[in-house]
Amino acid sequence: MTTMLLTNGIIVTVDDAMTVHWPGYVAAKNGVITEIGEGDPPAHSGDVIDLDGDILMPGMVNTHCHLAMALFRGLGDDEPDRLKRYIFPLEKRFVSPEMVYVGSLLAGLELAEGGVTTVADMYYFEAQAGRALETLGLRGVVGQTIVDFAAPDAPTTDDGFAQFERLAADFRDHPTITASIAPHAPYTTGLDILRRVDAASRSADLPVQIHVSEMDYEADWVRDHCGGSPVDLLDQSGLLRPGVIAAHCLWVDDRDITNLARGGVAVAHNAGANVKGGRGIAPVLDMVAAGVTVGLGSDGPMSGNTIDLFAQMSQVAKLQKLRARDRTVMPAIDVVRLATIGGAKALGLDDRIGSLEPGKRADIVRISRSAARLHPLHDPYAALVYAALPSDVSDVMVDGRFIVREGRITAIDRASLLAEADAYADRMRRAL
Amino acid sequence: MTTMLLTNGIIVTVDDAMTVHWPGYVAAKNGVITEIGEGDPPAHSGDVIDLDGDILMPGMVNTHCHLAMALFRGLGDDEPDRLKRYIFPLEKRFVSPEMVYVGSLLAGLELAEGGVTTVADMYYFEAQAGRALETLGLRGVVGQTIVDFAAPDAPTTDDGFAQFERLAADFRDHPTITASIAPHAPYTTGLDILRRVDAASRSADLPVQIHVSEMDYEADWVRDHCGGSPVDLLDQSGLLRPGVIAAHCLWVDDRDITNLARGGVAVAHNAGANVKGGRGIAPVLDMVAAGVTVGLGSDGPMSGNTIDLFAQMSQVAKLQKLRARDRTVMPAIDVVRLATIGGAKALGLDDRIGSLEPGKRADIVRISRSAARLHPLHDPYAALVYAALPSDVSDVMVDGRFIVREGRITAIDRASLLAEADAYADRMRRAL
Repeated sequence: MTTMLLTNGIIVTVDDAMTVHWPGYVAAKNGVITEIGEGDPPAHSGDVIDLDGDILMPGMVNTHCHLAMALFRGLGDDEPDRLKRYIFPLEKRFVSPEMVYVGSLLAGLELAEGGVTTVADMYYFEAQAGRALETLGLRGVVGQTIVDFAAPDAPTTDDGFAQFERLAADFRDHPTITASIAPHAPYTTGLDILRRVDAASRSADLPVQIHVSEMDYEADWVRDHCGGSPVDLLDQSGLLRPGVIAAHCLWVDDRDITNLARGGVAVAHNAGANVKGGRGIAPVLDMVAAGVTVGLGSDGPMSGNTIDLFAQMSQVAKLQKLRARDRTVMPAIDVVRLATIGGAKALGLDDRIGSLEPGKRADIVRISRSAARLHPLHDPYAALVYAALPSDVSDVMVDGRFIVREGRITAIDRASLLAEADAYADRMRRAL
Repeated sequence: MTTMLLTNGIIVTVDDAMTVHWPGYVAAKNGVITEIGEGDPPAHSGDVIDLDGDILMPGMVNTHCHLAMALFRGLGDDEPDRLKRYIFPLEKRFVSPEMVYVGSLLAGLELAEGGVTTVADMYYFEAQAGRALETLGLRGVVGQTIVDFAAPDAPTTDDGFAQFERLAADFRDHPTITASIAPHAPYTTGLDILRRVDAASRSADLPVQIHVSEMDYEADWVRDHCGGSPVDLLDQSGLLRPGVIAAHCLWVDDRDITNLARGGVAVAHNAGANVKGGRGIAPVLDMVAAGVTVGLGSDGPMSGNTIDLFAQMSQVAKLQKLRARDRTVMPAIDVVRLATIGGAKALGLDDRIGSLEPGKRADIVRISRSAARLHPLHDPYAALVYAALPSDVSDVMVDGRFIVREGRITAIDRASLLAEADAYADRMRRAL
């Protein structure tokens, strides 16, 4: 039995009442939060940590990433039509099990040290991504990508489905890693493949991840090939339902939003990647108002470059204010909700994570206040959304175990990993 | 004679050819850059620092800030009509010489540790801001605010002008601090006061800072009271000329942009504050294309919350891409230019700072690559704009003197300052 008490902090619980205990404490036992409250804690026998006025918040949930692409970070950032002309050929040439493992470790290091404790990933050779997350102590949903062309890990679409079956078997009953099936997008799969995805995911009782309404050319493709909108295509294929995580949903209209809410599809909103791509601002306020479950995502490190959620939180707030031409919408408190419990709900994990409450797993992030930007602290939500950075994260726990201490990952030698990732990337760049 | 050699780094010079020496070196003597080049440096007798592959870039130039408002950071962030209903009354109540000194030290700490070596400030009791910047070793342009109502440091407008005269005398021939006169905005001054500002600044040969075309109600006010646009009002008052720094310029049309370029007015672009206020995206691409000198600003810590320029760089790139619906515009290399030499030109200091070139002052920032987000490094500009954070700054020099070492300010005890700032802010919050 491991017990632990964290005292004298600003405890941002993200419970239903959005309680902040200031000062307050959190106690955990065997990886589960047992007590939480205001002021001085009850007598306690285990490890006691004085937070010295630092902020505690729930581990953040990144609902959309392509971890291994960390090795491509910074390549061709400002290039036109990048996905088809640049990324797909790059992936065909370089993606391998080793690349996915090294890249996912690099990305996982950034996530963990930046306060993200759970990530939903979709890529290739996803067993390697799962192993990398497991190595670092992170929670994850790892999605086998399905496309209608030869993929780096699957010469045919059938092979992709076979990969998914193996992935599901690999992580069956795993305590922190969940397998998933990830059809790339409507325009790279089509109705028949999506129907197979629906059947496979129902049969395995595992979640589905898919890009939806991200590209301007996507709506035209769907209308011409299947009729209706990309969200209608989800409906036609059986995927307008809970357990489906739709990334982006940039070009959705009111009818689509109503359908997403009615069906129980969750949306992974990628604010930064959408604007960096020159695409637009997703109607997040409308989605939330309609009752759609929304979480935040970074997209891959080639799209958003950084994959922590502090960068996203600030952008989500500002871009929604810009879209509405109203500084009062999407206040900081709502953004913190999206980054934590919103993401947990999107991944179907909100019974276990997403808030600091008794009975939930002890996935906890400590934000140090050593940087000037976190002084003074008039409002913890404003500080977290508009000022805090991933570098302000000092300690991170998953299941009550420290995966980051004093800003540094505990499980691996980080300098060796960074050197290995750089060497790997150098070889790729020289080959280009 | 102090000589210094920095070797084995990625040297981002921001010279006219945008040369990057990778690996490269920089040598400085008596605060001036003497040599810069690729590969191994020539034999050297002074201090030698091995950069171990880190990035060197010019000290960044924040062209628009209200430093002392750091003490208000996080107050009423998501409130409507905040300037008139919230900020002006708050300032009337709390702004004092002590408040400006403490707040400017806090803000200056954030700037220095975040890689900003020069800042243009406009506020009240600006001698205190100048002293704070001087204490920390930062370069600055400190602007006495002029308004048509009772200001915290000037019961009447005449008193404001008298304050400016004192400020000009205080910092006459100062090596790093320049006094300035800062009429708040067209709608809080009007034509007659702006004409006096023009005369006073010409007489003192000192720069002018002013908010221009920031507010949606501003254009209406100017049209009704003076005729024309806010930029036309600059023209009518003699301020459409070099030495004038116009902050924001959000609502400018093609004619205004042509006039700004023709007149030689510099624009301080505040990307983050403009969107956080729900206002809009300034037409920076059009301004740059028309030949307007543009620098980046953070606006005050109550508007942008953080005041380093890494946050601005990322936002400038993304928001311009969003505005143009084109991911290829405002590439990272152009953004780095705006944050350094662009700002130096805007403040009329480009003969001394803004790039790493022989003959320029040694205002140099070292970016550590210890964080995962800076690995791999395929493109230094992409890394600086889309991934680097102020916390990645390890060392900062101004005039060849280290003002930051290993991420920490050298001139003051930072823990004492943070505690003092917190205590000051707590007293204000309790009084609210």
